[in-house]
Amino acid sequence: MINAGIVGGAGYTAGELLRILINHPDVEIAWVQSNSQAGKAVAAVHTSLLGETYLQFQAEAEYGSVDVLFLCMGHGRSASFLSENEVPEEVRIIDLSTDFRAESEDHDFVYGLPELQRDRIRLATRVANPGCFATAIQLALLPLAKNGLLEDHVHVHAVTGSTGAGQAPSATTHFSWRNNNISIYKAFRHQHLQEIGQSVRMLQPDFDLDINFLPLRGNFPRGIYTSTYLYTDLKAGKATELFEEFYADSPFVFCSPTNPDLKQVVNTNKGIVYLDWHEGKLLIVSMIDNLLKGASGQAVQNMNLLFGLDEAAGLRLKPSQF
Amino acid sequence: MINAGIVGGAGYTAGELLRILINHPDVEIAWVQSNSQAGKAVAAVHTSLLGETYLQFQAEAEYGSVDVLFLCMGHGRSASFLSENEVPEEVRIIDLSTDFRAESEDHDFVYGLPELQRDRIRLATRVANPGCFATAIQLALLPLAKNGLLEDHVHVHAVTGSTGAGQAPSATTHFSWRNNNISIYKAFRHQHLQEIGQSVRMLQPDFDLDINFLPLRGNFPRGIYTSTYLYTDLKAGKATELFEEFYADSPFVFCSPTNPDLKQVVNTNKGIVYLDWHEGKLLIVSMIDNLLKGASGQAVQNMNLLFGLDEAAGLRLKPSQF
Amino acid sequence: MINAGIVGGAGYTAGELLRILINHPDVEIAWVQSNSQAGKAVAAVHTSLLGETYLQFQAEAEYGSVDVLFLCMGHGRSASFLSENEVPEEVRIIDLSTDFRAESEDHDFVYGLPELQRDRIRLATRVANPGCFATAIQLALLPLAKNGLLEDHVHVHAVTGSTGAGQAPSATTHFSWRNNNISIYKAFRHQHLQEIGQSVRMLQPDFDLDINFLPLRGNFPRGIYTSTYLYTDLKAGKATELFEEFYADSPFVFCSPTNPDLKQVVNTNKGIVYLDWHEGKLLIVSMIDNLLKGASGQAVQNMNLLFGLDEAAGLRLKPSQF
Amino acid sequence: MINAGIVGGAGYTAGELLRILINHPDVEIAWVQSNSQAGKAVAAVHTSLLGETYLQFQAEAEYGSVDVLFLCMGHGRSASFLSENEVPEEVRIIDLSTDFRAESEDHDFVYGLPELQRDRIRLATRVANPGCFATAIQLALLPLAKNGLLEDHVHVHAVTGSTGAGQAPSATTHFSWRNNNISIYKAFRHQHLQEIGQSVRMLQPDFDLDINFLPLRGNFPRGIYTSTYLYTDLKAGKATELFEEFYADSPFVFCSPTNPDLKQVVNTNKGIVYLDWHEGKLLIVSMIDNLLKGASGQAVQNMNLLFGLDEAAGLRLKPSQF
Repeated sequence: MINAGIVGGAGYTAGELLRILINHPDVEIAWVQSNSQAGKAVAAVHTSLLGETYLQFQAEAEYGSVDVLFLCMGHGRSASFLSENEVPEEVRIIDLSTDFRAESEDHDFVYGLPELQRDRIRLATRVANPGCFATAIQLALLPLAKNGLLEDHVHVHAVTGSTGAGQAPSATTHFSWRNNNISIYKAFRHQHLQEIGQSVRMLQPDFDLDINFLPLRGNFPRGIYTSTYLYTDLKAGKATELFEEFYADSPFVFCSPTNPDLKQVVNTNKGIVYLDWHEGKLLIVSMIDNLLKGASGQAVQNMNLLFGLDEAAGLRLKPSQF
Repeated sequence: MINAGIVGGAGYTAGELLRILINHPDVEIAWVQSNSQAGKAVAAVHTSLLGETYLQFQAEAEYGSVDVLFLCMGHGRSASFLSENEVPEEVRIIDLSTDFRAESEDHDFVYGLPELQRDRIRLATRVANPGCFATAIQLALLPLAKNGLLEDHVHVHAVTGSTGAGQAPSATTHFSWRNNNISIYKAFRHQHLQEIGQSVRMLQPDFDLDINFLPLRGNFPRGIYTSTYLYTDLKAGKATELFEEFYADSPFVFCSPTNPDLKQVVNTNKGIVYLDWHEGKLLIVSMIDNLLKGASGQAVQNMNLLFGLDEAAGLRLKPSQF
Repeated sequence: MINAGIVGGAGYTAGELLRILINHPDVEIAWVQSNSQAGKAVAAVHTSLLGETYLQFQAEAEYGSVDVLFLCMGHGRSASFLSENEVPEEVRIIDLSTDFRAESEDHDFVYGLPELQRDRIRLATRVANPGCFATAIQLALLPLAKNGLLEDHVHVHAVTGSTGAGQAPSATTHFSWRNNNISIYKAFRHQHLQEIGQSVRMLQPDFDLDINFLPLRGNFPRGIYTSTYLYTDLKAGKATELFEEFYADSPFVFCSPTNPDLKQVVNTNKGIVYLDWHEGKLLIVSMIDNLLKGASGQAVQNMNLLFGLDEAAGLRLKPSQF
Repeated sequence: MINAGIVGGAGYTAGELLRILINHPDVEIAWVQSNSQAGKAVAAVHTSLLGETYLQFQAEAEYGSVDVLFLCMGHGRSASFLSENEVPEEVRIIDLSTDFRAESEDHDFVYGLPELQRDRIRLATRVANPGCFATAIQLALLPLAKNGLLEDHVHVHAVTGSTGAGQAPSATTHFSWRNNNISIYKAFRHQHLQEIGQSVRMLQPDFDLDINFLPLRGNFPRGIYTSTYLYTDLKAGKATELFEEFYADSPFVFCSPTNPDLKQVVNTNKGIVYLDWHEGKLLIVSMIDNLLKGASGQAVQNMNLLFGLDEAAGLRLKPSQF
């Protein structure tokens, strides 16, 4: 059994991670650390775990007892945590923040998108788990980049669920505001563009065109729905072949033969892509559940790779569909 | 023209009041006071007013310039406001808080449910605007009380929209939590039972049975849907007659000939009641929009009565229906 | 491995059953029958199964190849199916319709609420799977009936998700209507009262009081939230003890120490109950996911019992929580 | 008073039209025709009108009694209606279908976007009311076209509410499907591109670039939210000036100084536009309520112009905001 510790256990991504790990056949949850909830029952905060765990949050992280550490703190806090705490070298670390997604000589985190670099992750000890938007958009772009086909500006619209904004209540996550509403934010300026560009250039090094990315706040809690297009002669049939080839070894990414909808991926670790071509424009729809393939599910997928397990272990989840 | 001032102008009820008064044929909004938003444009906070007003929030209330004052502060704060501020006697006051709903010799506020005491309101200078749940439930009970027919315990379930909880974000108004969710709170203990009991006993003084009231948080922003029943031989047909008689002079309350749904009243000042009888139990469905008939719409209805206007002036609102 | 066949495979309950059985460790899905969709891919109809199955619907049911048959047809059609088809005696049958829920000498179906009669189900060959409302309400009533404590009329208010209405589009399942809406139907007259009464009288044979049941249409797709109360001296603490005793052997039913919300059970097979007492009234909140514990999850739970498997096999589902 | 008749009175646009006209100070509704609902009360179908009208649907349209005719039938049926019925020349006609939006020598309908050709509408007798997507997108493009600034391909992403799909229930308007869901349809191929192109070329005749339009189904009932961008040096400040100039005489279109959200326009006849520029790309957000400015509200706005009334008469609607 793999013993896992979770740092920053009270937030949304930690909750989703717990909901997965509790049923993972190869994992034991050693402890869940939380500053704000120390002493409380885990199921009192992540309330759908009632009856499934009697764990309590604890204030301290204990590195001696674990094989893997999941860092589920806010962005910026993983870096400071690691500079303040001495985690033994043999403890593998999966960080869900943005802090180490930019690959660099300053740290040894590998960017953890299995569909991009499954083999590097298998050999790594530390993984920077990708962002949710970044995951969905890369699923749409990487097969093209791999084939050198990103030859014009890319146009991306992506609608995200409210859980992407975290659990701290705010004006734009207030139910009265968000219900039946939609709005844009950080147009052309979203921070995930950095990691998307990094991955694209791993496959198509000379790519220097624009990725025009409009993120929107959707009025649903889970999921990211992206529509991406670019001018190209590559038609849908041939593109689908390239996508299927690119994802041939990926247990979670599927090409849909028909126009899909977001709820096909909700509560699963899947990515679904769909291709359409019309008068010189190739459209790629791609969709994930932001808390699963976009966060905690992908973190477990990375853990499976780090420990040589079946990549899908613990991640064959019943879709909710409704 | 009636000059109106609004104290506590940044919250939900003040916003709704502004959205009504801006189109009221007989009212001029003199000023809108807010501690938290002073200096900001009103339309920057109540954003659907973009293009409809250039008013700004101001820190001070100016009594000299107004004929009527709407108090839209939190519960408990109206009483302290009035003890700290000397409002001229000729300024009429409509208070939307709970502070003065209990009629008492200690103050001269009249309980402002027009369907109960339209004539007393017409003669009043100060009105305590009823609570939202209290309004919906009284619409179901008063015609029976008037006829002395509340002869057994009363069973009330009522589901309210999220705007009833105000605009301060909280765990139970977080979209991620509330979307597709429902839950009970303050079972049998809701504070509106006080004013409901007061009104019932005005009409049926010896009433001393239970009103068992279960309030629920619904996953919609506007509206209160109540289902009330009691054991009685009074059948639906005869009951409908009594209700229609009771509401004959009420421009906003209607008996539905068929089983209604909540959205029939959303964005209107209406109350809809519906009666059904089955094996000794009389069911009364009643519904209102909590921000309108349950708060700001009723406040304007009371203002209309205070100033001798058409009771429905400014309140013939297009229903949203969807 | 248990070979399973599904009759009536295109509807909501069959879809949910497929989503469970696909990951059940002891089950092989032999075939899925559907009149309307024969020849189509199962994943083309139950679209969240994309990538999980390559099964196709077939027109015919083949009894020779299966150990268990799930009947997922509309109410009334199971009875006619069984009179028209000769299912071999050794094939176990789990029927999700209302047709055989009334226990009778005319048939040998056992009423399949494991929490009521786990042992009878273990010995049965044919099971009538309970109704969704009926399951939720029985979870609230049976521990009291077992102790002879249903000594006054019972008041039940229950809100159901839209999937309870099936997949045929209709006026009251139209998104434009149902979004942000709520309404009552079949007040005091819901057909599930029959099976609830049958179960209550198994435990408290002389019960002849009213179960006043108000069903409501909620604006969420999954879940049933019920609030039930009756006049009694039994306080919450003692009641909780009785409930915990009653459910001691039940792997899916839990007493919540705090006031719960519906989403704690969504996408799980759990039932959660919560007890509160105030001035002579005992409130029991109970909640299930109507498609799981209220239908297909309970069907699999019954299958597990029929075949001597772990009762929870295949049903340790990740809650969606959001 | 203007006497109005409505043909095809049972659908969503007719319902919204009725909800407006009932309170319009200058209009009397003479009759409402419906094939499917003849004989029924209007308020039995458009249920939020309970208490507001005692009109009944009638099978026949009576031209003698009306000044204006609103055609609210399905697309294609207005043309056949007019070829089969002789409407007197003096009766003004406002058609809400697509049938006459393509201006042509074959008919004398004027394309009824007041912001484009207010003066032509004032002189017209027959008006083709614009489509909902087309209205929202034109509000974003026309000020640029007017100034000859559409000098690169245009990228449009627009999310629509479910009422845009009409009231006939279907798979994609089923609540269980649409709740918390999103999906694309008719990518690059939506029929409204025709009328958008026609209007753009009225102002910028040589425009021959692409308008790449991705329509999406949103999980809300009312509203259209569009985000449009193109490569240009025109920055947000200067663009806002051009937009404000273009809409100076338009009582319903406003430039928002801050990033808006859809619910600012819901239940109003407003259009809100917002401009942002980043690294060579100008973003224009535009939003309307699809049933109001996108259909029936605009139809009344056109009626007001046809009859020389205040353009906003009857259209100063309380926003719902929530």
